[in-house]
Amino acid sequence: MPEVTFHGLDIGRVDPNDDLVERIVSTTGEEYALSDGDVIVITAKVVSFAEGRLIEADDVDVTERDRRVAEITGIDPREVAVIYEESDVLGAIPIAEVGEDLLLEHAVDPDVAQEALDDVPSMLVTERNGRLCTNAGVDWSNSPEGKMTLLPKDPDESARRLRGEIEARTGADVAVVLSDSEIAGPGSMDLAIGCSGIEAIDTNFGRADLYDQPKIGGVDLVADELTAGAALLFGQADERVPVVIVRGLEYEDGEGVPNSSGIVRRGLRKSIELTARLKAREWF
Amino acid sequence: MPEVTFHGLDIGRVDPNDDLVERIVSTTGEEYALSDGDVIVITAKVVSFAEGRLIEADDVDVTERDRRVAEITGIDPREVAVIYEESDVLGAIPIAEVGEDLLLEHAVDPDVAQEALDDVPSMLVTERNGRLCTNAGVDWSNSPEGKMTLLPKDPDESARRLRGEIEARTGADVAVVLSDSEIAGPGSMDLAIGCSGIEAIDTNFGRADLYDQPKIGGVDLVADELTAGAALLFGQADERVPVVIVRGLEYEDGEGVPNSSGIVRRGLRKSIELTARLKAREWF
Repeated sequence: MPEVTFHGLDIGRVDPNDDLVERIVSTTGEEYALSDGDVIVITAKVVSFAEGRLIEADDVDVTERDRRVAEITGIDPREVAVIYEESDVLGAIPIAEVGEDLLLEHAVDPDVAQEALDDVPSMLVTERNGRLCTNAGVDWSNSPEGKMTLLPKDPDESARRLRGEIEARTGADVAVVLSDSEIAGPGSMDLAIGCSGIEAIDTNFGRADLYDQPKIGGVDLVADELTAGAALLFGQADERVPVVIVRGLEYEDGEGVPNSSGIVRRGLRKSIELTARLKAREWF
Repeated sequence: MPEVTFHGLDIGRVDPNDDLVERIVSTTGEEYALSDGDVIVITAKVVSFAEGRLIEADDVDVTERDRRVAEITGIDPREVAVIYEESDVLGAIPIAEVGEDLLLEHAVDPDVAQEALDDVPSMLVTERNGRLCTNAGVDWSNSPEGKMTLLPKDPDESARRLRGEIEARTGADVAVVLSDSEIAGPGSMDLAIGCSGIEAIDTNFGRADLYDQPKIGGVDLVADELTAGAALLFGQADERVPVVIVRGLEYEDGEGVPNSSGIVRRGLRKSIELTARLKAREWF
């Protein structure tokens, strides 16, 4: 029977400009040697650290626009400036106002949670590298004091480079998926922001089902399923498991995550149009 | 180091009114005996079969409204009738128009895929059991000819019942999560529609991060991460692995998936308001 194992790696705290591949290879070498067909899911945060993608907040130039946006969103104006630099800003979500009840209900410490909500009452909806994400992935959390972490400049390219370095040092032909935590309905989940050596979307669309009928489903987001599963092991806060080795999965070769922001934006616009027609037809 | 194993179970094709728990227990008994702390992820489809939640399309009464909605969405009027019976209809997504290029690119057989797109050009956005989903989960695929499968009436209750029966027959204290395939961005992913014996959302919000700062993230959708990971093993079409045993996960006790449609709808409305204010502030 098919069996897939998710094995978390404690590679210790990664500090800016550490050699990430060396840390992964030495940790796996001792406890779980890499082999062909493994998928390595890595949180974008440690890849950013290793690539030196940190910015000193006090070095950021803030414009009048950044101040105006900061005022209505509650986001630090220096972060606003970086988000506009890193992405196209499409909109904003008032997280605290929408989800306060749910968030406080699921808080470890209500006071600390309230403090976090006061600190970050809203998030910007952004488009970066062809994907929709919040705050362009810019993050103060798990970052050294006074610094923000930016996403890798080109996450697919980072995945490709990491995959090449891992093969060069171990001989193992693996796939690499970079993940980042994103809002998904009533909470958050890790989704794929870059990959190499694996097809991000499977190819079952239109295959016959159990009863030999063509099936419309089956456009499985394999790379996102891998990051979501790996998130069961990632430490979201004070844990230190930013790397998960997935073993036993059959997958196809491929490069890059799909450029999805176009399809999502077009889907939203066309769905609003069809919904208006639907609602008119329901009663007239 | 943390390690979580996803083990797929081939329980054979489940036919209407089969004893699902007997099939699971006898299959696991031979190859992978259940033990305390296992999480059993089951596709809603086989739970619906076992509960006899199938409907003969020709027995459905179709109203004038159903015909009007069918006309603009391309959905079979009998399916429209069942969807309105099963849920509140909030809107519609013109899937074929939005995603045709992507879907045909990822098709196994372009002709069969085109046929599937012609058959189901749109989907209805519905609210059911406090969750948003498409077509109220009503599905012709993997169903006997001329029949539609409906979701379990109360998926949390089904999970609770299955969990109790499994414990009664094996003595193992497991958790049960029911999953269904849903649209997620540019493809589909399995999400949790019911659960028992596990907290669906984890409780890390506001915990201190690596640098002792409170963190706004960490509202992890654990149940959805489990179903997404299990989807790597589920056969979406002609495969027969509708059950996945997840072993090695530490989780908290809890009942039920969150009632998320309110928060998602409120989030959408409030995000549109804040986005309008944001766009006004960007330039004026």
